[in-house]
Amino acid sequence: MNAIGTIFRVQLFGESHGPAVGVVVDGVPAGLPLVPDDFEPDLARRRAGAPGTTPRAEADVPELLSGVYRGMTTGTPLCAAFRNADARPADYDLFAAMPRPGHADWVSRIRYSGYADPRGSGHFSGRLTVGLVAAGVVAKKVLRGASFGARVAEAGGRGDVDAAIAEAAADGDSVGAIVELRVAGLRAGLGEPFFGALESLAAAALFAVPGVRGVEFGDGFAAARMRGSEHNDPIVAPDGTTSRNGAGGVNGGVSNGNELVVRVAMKPTATIAKPQLTWDFDEGAAGELSAPGRHDACIAVRGAVALEAALAVVLADLELQSLARGSSLRNGRIPS
Amino acid sequence: MNAIGTIFRVQLFGESHGPAVGVVVDGVPAGLPLVPDDFEPDLARRRAGAPGTTPRAEADVPELLSGVYRGMTTGTPLCAAFRNADARPADYDLFAAMPRPGHADWVSRIRYSGYADPRGSGHFSGRLTVGLVAAGVVAKKVLRGASFGARVAEAGGRGDVDAAIAEAAADGDSVGAIVELRVAGLRAGLGEPFFGALESLAAAALFAVPGVRGVEFGDGFAAARMRGSEHNDPIVAPDGTTSRNGAGGVNGGVSNGNELVVRVAMKPTATIAKPQLTWDFDEGAAGELSAPGRHDACIAVRGAVALEAALAVVLADLELQSLARGSSLRNGRIPS
Amino acid sequence: MNAIGTIFRVQLFGESHGPAVGVVVDGVPAGLPLVPDDFEPDLARRRAGAPGTTPRAEADVPELLSGVYRGMTTGTPLCAAFRNADARPADYDLFAAMPRPGHADWVSRIRYSGYADPRGSGHFSGRLTVGLVAAGVVAKKVLRGASFGARVAEAGGRGDVDAAIAEAAADGDSVGAIVELRVAGLRAGLGEPFFGALESLAAAALFAVPGVRGVEFGDGFAAARMRGSEHNDPIVAPDGTTSRNGAGGVNGGVSNGNELVVRVAMKPTATIAKPQLTWDFDEGAAGELSAPGRHDACIAVRGAVALEAALAVVLADLELQSLARGSSLRNGRIPS
Amino acid sequence: MNAIGTIFRVQLFGESHGPAVGVVVDGVPAGLPLVPDDFEPDLARRRAGAPGTTPRAEADVPELLSGVYRGMTTGTPLCAAFRNADARPADYDLFAAMPRPGHADWVSRIRYSGYADPRGSGHFSGRLTVGLVAAGVVAKKVLRGASFGARVAEAGGRGDVDAAIAEAAADGDSVGAIVELRVAGLRAGLGEPFFGALESLAAAALFAVPGVRGVEFGDGFAAARMRGSEHNDPIVAPDGTTSRNGAGGVNGGVSNGNELVVRVAMKPTATIAKPQLTWDFDEGAAGELSAPGRHDACIAVRGAVALEAALAVVLADLELQSLARGSSLRNGRIPS
Repeated sequence: MNAIGTIFRVQLFGESHGPAVGVVVDGVPAGLPLVPDDFEPDLARRRAGAPGTTPRAEADVPELLSGVYRGMTTGTPLCAAFRNADARPADYDLFAAMPRPGHADWVSRIRYSGYADPRGSGHFSGRLTVGLVAAGVVAKKVLRGASFGARVAEAGGRGDVDAAIAEAAADGDSVGAIVELRVAGLRAGLGEPFFGALESLAAAALFAVPGVRGVEFGDGFAAARMRGSEHNDPIVAPDGTTSRNGAGGVNGGVSNGNELVVRVAMKPTATIAKPQLTWDFDEGAAGELSAPGRHDACIAVRGAVALEAALAVVLADLELQSLARGSSLRNGRIPS
Repeated sequence: MNAIGTIFRVQLFGESHGPAVGVVVDGVPAGLPLVPDDFEPDLARRRAGAPGTTPRAEADVPELLSGVYRGMTTGTPLCAAFRNADARPADYDLFAAMPRPGHADWVSRIRYSGYADPRGSGHFSGRLTVGLVAAGVVAKKVLRGASFGARVAEAGGRGDVDAAIAEAAADGDSVGAIVELRVAGLRAGLGEPFFGALESLAAAALFAVPGVRGVEFGDGFAAARMRGSEHNDPIVAPDGTTSRNGAGGVNGGVSNGNELVVRVAMKPTATIAKPQLTWDFDEGAAGELSAPGRHDACIAVRGAVALEAALAVVLADLELQSLARGSSLRNGRIPS
Repeated sequence: MNAIGTIFRVQLFGESHGPAVGVVVDGVPAGLPLVPDDFEPDLARRRAGAPGTTPRAEADVPELLSGVYRGMTTGTPLCAAFRNADARPADYDLFAAMPRPGHADWVSRIRYSGYADPRGSGHFSGRLTVGLVAAGVVAKKVLRGASFGARVAEAGGRGDVDAAIAEAAADGDSVGAIVELRVAGLRAGLGEPFFGALESLAAAALFAVPGVRGVEFGDGFAAARMRGSEHNDPIVAPDGTTSRNGAGGVNGGVSNGNELVVRVAMKPTATIAKPQLTWDFDEGAAGELSAPGRHDACIAVRGAVALEAALAVVLADLELQSLARGSSLRNGRIPS
Repeated sequence: MNAIGTIFRVQLFGESHGPAVGVVVDGVPAGLPLVPDDFEPDLARRRAGAPGTTPRAEADVPELLSGVYRGMTTGTPLCAAFRNADARPADYDLFAAMPRPGHADWVSRIRYSGYADPRGSGHFSGRLTVGLVAAGVVAKKVLRGASFGARVAEAGGRGDVDAAIAEAAADGDSVGAIVELRVAGLRAGLGEPFFGALESLAAAALFAVPGVRGVEFGDGFAAARMRGSEHNDPIVAPDGTTSRNGAGGVNGGVSNGNELVVRVAMKPTATIAKPQLTWDFDEGAAGELSAPGRHDACIAVRGAVALEAALAVVLADLELQSLARGSSLRNGRIPS
């Protein structure tokens, strides 16, 4: 299923070069102000144009087919569709014969028995994240007190991100990156132990974004190299304030009122101009593939806002769940 | 909700020092041979006793309350309960007044409005993983052709795991570790792009295990430092065989028939004898907590099998989903 | 949530006089032939025009936004949207001040805190069933061997349905009816005891259609007046053949290979020209409402195909679930 | 799946003559007072002993394995198990060879490929409703302001219920009945149009109870014989008060604050002493079955409380969902 959430539920649909991509968000609270322009800031962040990003130009104007009336959410399922305008399907014919290493071309044929739309990777395309970003915009409206940050912390292991990307692009290559997400102003008490853990739900949403290879919270993998006396966050006040935030804002699957800190590893783009070895089904032999077409040299640049949206969607769902329980703290701090 | 899965669905219940912990597994195929002894090998792996593990002794004999008849699964919900025998609730009274840094004591009060069972961390306890391990045993029977491996790859950043743990224990401290999971013999075609991605579902299950701070697939975080020409796996045969496995067995959310490789970062145990700073609610001031009681110096030792079980549960669910589609490959290889 | 299903999952969206209504169907098997014309026969059955139906004219041409490629389903989420062309929102302004007796005008304001789209009943409108009918068309393709029948068995308690409707229409009134659904060729073994019962899932889908007040299977309410020796179906052959079908094709929540027989009670249309007593919020007093606008005198005429679609959606889901188990019979008969 | 609910989620498990039957309820709010004695009144209502009910004697003492601490719900999954004490499996051997007409014996073999526990109908048994009744007790605590009523309105089409049952029992036969459920004090605004309709969710739960053949709300099937001018409920006050309740408390899938009125048709018990025709698999020919064992002559007598519980479970789920939206009315009446 391409859907996620319990109360705030997001269903994606679309193919890269089909008529449209989009999203249905069910469980949106009634009465949130929402107009098409609200989507523009986040959509602009994922839009092509920055150095090292694809020149595919899509206006990405959301058509709100349902769930909004006179600039307010109605509480009924909200459908936002985005027309695919700048589709160039012919760019992708080659990959049917020569599946791209590191891409979904080969598994797509297995998974969908050969019936998947191959144009532009079809439903596997990063283009689908436009619907996710739209859902994130709505989710952030549910999370009124929270503020989100997403930045490419490093690319190719280097802090000078833009230079690292430019060098890879100049080589006809691509480069991986780490995106750091931060959410301040979350209430304490979101999530629960085990399968409803905030980390479980967040990781599920984050790994849904194409190209994610790792997710960590707080100290993350570094915690595996630490002693407990180093990693544990001392509690220094009765409201739960800690003197450090190695947990990244979550203990036992539950938000603790600290800033939520998540780091996401994104792999380098699979589609590169540099020749790669792959099987050539037309020739019946291994061959070299030099991918034509329009591609990002680093998917993290445009992907960061999609990751932020994925996180927002999960947190909005947890926020609404907590209202159903009536048991968590609005300001993330317990009174002393 | 403490439940996971679409067709093969796992519901955990229990508190560490309540009457019992256990699991209901719904959607188990009928006709799988299953007797109580089948659970013993995996339960033994998570049982206390190894150096650096808690001396709490639980026989962990599963009581199969439903879903099994004459040594075969019936296809109806399977409930396995485990009595809590060696419970010593008094060990934990202290933590109500002095919440452990890095533990769920503080968030538990917020999340459950003060009504959670505090004894032995209640529902937050690692003891709950006994039910998860039991579900994993059933899941592996669904995945007939697959073989699982789980090992503590490093502890405290060191390869000499046992020594690293022993040193931490001697210091009254704990140490984090990395667990590497490998699954061979999975068919290609499990999972799908976006929210149904194999990585999404697997990560959700893995982060449900207490103490997990990071999850990565294949090259994982290292992929963020690589070029595409390094990371992409060349396809060298028409059956999809690749010359390396940097993807860890998954492309575009779908298994590709290669070995599934997942690495999990586990934090050091929160509960340590070494004094830690925390708020003392009785005193109304910060104070030092030196935790008494019985605790593992490295939760990864006993936790590895729980992680393996979490992964198995997800893969069993995906396997059954793929049968519903009738579209994936039994041997993980497409015919040329 | 306006969604239903486990594997074959249907999500409706839209408002009667918004830009569009539609449906996302997730979990569609790949490789089913599907072109826009396939929807026409069932859409024609729910289209206005017959005597006693509304003159609102909608072409109901499905726009397949995703999930179909070159005339075949891809296996990815299928979105079908239907533009609202012949919308006349002004018809409905009156009902904001004077909520129609028997309609959702009053509860809509409560449920959605006053933010629902009031035009043409918004998301409550029978117009939403166009998406359901579209999902039903896809569902029937999943159920290859099954044949569906739906007929208005009686209206106003009379067998001469057309006359009963014409008389009610002539009086500016409406009339209730009973729709009988029959499905032949279903395999035995679909459904399960308790919450996964075929009747449970079918009734949930059928009561989702606006205006349904009762659902019964086989002898239904008549069974409440029978003795066991009358109601029980004698088994007369080793393949499970019975000499009558009082169970309507289901025992213990599981299909038995007999024809599935369901009867659905549909209430008379709430919106009628005949004056009705209701509260006039503008006047602050009770008043008489004589509803203008275009309405069916008997919703069962156009609703029958929506009920058939609702049933098909559930049966397709159960069919796919049974494939996951690999345990039911293709022809509905056990070999002797 | 034998589970139901979105926030308040109920999972049943067990076989009639296995070790135990029971229920896990996930999503219970923390802080509800709950002790084992709270279950007794409703369990007593479903216990055998009344004239025409089976003499099987079960103490039905719930063992609360989790989710309760010091007499209060903890907010974590609540597991209640009931040991099967008075099991007499030998009573049921006969039905393997001669499947009971009207019972699940035949479909059980198909559905579970011959692996189902046949003793006492296994998981198909009405014994499973003990877990459902337990869940209902918890659900009613969530619905603080609501009061429930359930009565056998007629049996065998007669108002003198006890006499009708006694006559059937004297004949070695059984008799069907109608159970009327009423819930007063529900708030308005529960449920939504289409798949989340209160009637959809309620009907799904009610049809899960063994023996249910029909469900209707308010005027129900009688509405199919009415004119709109008769069936529609006039609104006579600004708070939504109506002068009749033909809708049974629900419009457009949403509760309207009126009493919820549901009628349920229960078929006669399938297992009767009176000889019935069925296939004899041992003889390879049709034969007469005269069922031995202990059976109710009218399942509605003990089943009424199970139906009430099924309804309560759904309403508790909707109540918690409405808290998540924060949009419905506490007292079921909109202020004028």
